[in-house]
Amino acid sequence: MLKDTVRTLSYRNAIMKNRHLFKDKIVLDVGCGTGILSMFAARAGAKHVIAVDMSNIIEMAQQIVDINGFSDKITLLRGKLEDVEMPYDKVDIIISEWMGYFLLYESMLDTVLVARDRYLKPGGLIFPDKANIQVALIEDGSYKDEKIFYWEDVYGFDYSPFIPLVMTQPLIETVENKTVVTNHFKLIEFDLNTVTIDELAFHKPFKLTATRDDLAHALVAWFDIEFPYDQPQNKVVFSTGPHVNYTHWQQTIFYLDQVLDLKKGETIEGSLASRPNEHNNRELDIELEWDFRASGDHDSRQQRGKFNYFLR
Amino acid sequence: MLKDTVRTLSYRNAIMKNRHLFKDKIVLDVGCGTGILSMFAARAGAKHVIAVDMSNIIEMAQQIVDINGFSDKITLLRGKLEDVEMPYDKVDIIISEWMGYFLLYESMLDTVLVARDRYLKPGGLIFPDKANIQVALIEDGSYKDEKIFYWEDVYGFDYSPFIPLVMTQPLIETVENKTVVTNHFKLIEFDLNTVTIDELAFHKPFKLTATRDDLAHALVAWFDIEFPYDQPQNKVVFSTGPHVNYTHWQQTIFYLDQVLDLKKGETIEGSLASRPNEHNNRELDIELEWDFRASGDHDSRQQRGKFNYFLR
Repeated sequence: MLKDTVRTLSYRNAIMKNRHLFKDKIVLDVGCGTGILSMFAARAGAKHVIAVDMSNIIEMAQQIVDINGFSDKITLLRGKLEDVEMPYDKVDIIISEWMGYFLLYESMLDTVLVARDRYLKPGGLIFPDKANIQVALIEDGSYKDEKIFYWEDVYGFDYSPFIPLVMTQPLIETVENKTVVTNHFKLIEFDLNTVTIDELAFHKPFKLTATRDDLAHALVAWFDIEFPYDQPQNKVVFSTGPHVNYTHWQQTIFYLDQVLDLKKGETIEGSLASRPNEHNNRELDIELEWDFRASGDHDSRQQRGKFNYFLR
Repeated sequence: MLKDTVRTLSYRNAIMKNRHLFKDKIVLDVGCGTGILSMFAARAGAKHVIAVDMSNIIEMAQQIVDINGFSDKITLLRGKLEDVEMPYDKVDIIISEWMGYFLLYESMLDTVLVARDRYLKPGGLIFPDKANIQVALIEDGSYKDEKIFYWEDVYGFDYSPFIPLVMTQPLIETVENKTVVTNHFKLIEFDLNTVTIDELAFHKPFKLTATRDDLAHALVAWFDIEFPYDQPQNKVVFSTGPHVNYTHWQQTIFYLDQVLDLKKGETIEGSLASRPNEHNNRELDIELEWDFRASGDHDSRQQRGKFNYFLR
């Protein structure tokens, strides 16, 4: 987390700009890692921070908390949030960096929601409290060739059985913004104050409009994050999209098994369904459907498709 | 393996240039993965190839072998080499791509040696059959700052407890050849025809000579590989050093807890010990010692040191 400066500085700004919200409050840090968010909260004036993590990183966190003089402000607890003995019945604020690739892959959001339901006071705050998933289409012909058609001739052998396997695995990569050929569409927004674990499985429609004449080979998805604030100037947001600075989350690319030949202004409707895999609920099964009809009166271009992906 | 062309083309060259050695022979492929080496051997004229792998990749390998027309030449067996039922008592040739980072980290060499002792005919061949580890010193001040001193101020907090941890973890990275400030020294060579599993734990001296006036911050290690041949023009070798093309193995960097101030021609003696970790024998415990005495008559520069590393 530390070396992703977009991520860490966003948390720091969200906490420090809103330090009046942290003043004298009880804070719970879910999945604290090295304790950086807990120390931001302590520095912002929190009365006490409870920091929980399952990993042995917490031993290192304890050393760091100690040498930075927060031993009496931050209590580190090793274990599952569901199991640790909390020194408070309720907390004022939950902080957590829980986001995974495609927002939800291997994410800790389930645990944050458990923490919310069990420990957050009515009216308490969650940092961050809003997350949305956005999509667009990209032109990615040369890369698709490299990734997919590579397998047709591997040192003179036919490796094409790999192609369906590769196609079903969304890529986590950095997309150049110039490859985006449609507008951005907000597929779904989660309000962490109210969302339930069941709602993290979703099936949502999208409608995209081509911003130029070009081919489209893939759908790209990313997420945006918002933190709570009481005054507009203290609002902190960050995006993991192709139009902004790199984050370690990069973007998630779903190759279509068709090439769409788009003219500027034409629309592509479709839907994306995502649900936890039934055998491993940190993995995701994703189904993408699309329906593209060319707009010209005598234009017969129409392409519909459907493809299943697995984030493993 | 496939996309590392230095690696795969070296195997292909070693097999195809020596196809007369493979003609009508029984070949065992240890850890076959997608079956690429088995198909090279089949194409080189092997009578039959037995390919063993523990992973479910072998199901994909079976499809690839089938569509490439090698179903009757290559038999794929899933399981541990120690457990699978081999259709032959003895084989003529063993092929395997077993090398890990720093040659031995998470390597399959143990399994190759078991295969040799159990299945290789007297006088049989192992592709590859020679591997050596080489070392040199590098000037790496700016990168060391970035990797090590980064932890002294992380968003305004003291994270220095991470420094000893980071120091003990050798880095797997690509070293620029221009940073090498000494000659190369061959620390140890393994002859796969005779080496024993016990000999993979070693303690070897080295002596390095500065090739220019510069500072040295780290020892870099890499390995070279040789394949069997019967005529010199069919010899195939490849190196994973900083002086040649990139491979996925990159190089392994051990930061010293000192900076050595070298003048051209001065020597650094030392030793490197490597042994499998007693709790996990695929991990390595490595101890590095060095002794540098400046050569000038009235020069009091002398630096000795010792540091322990863990490849985890």
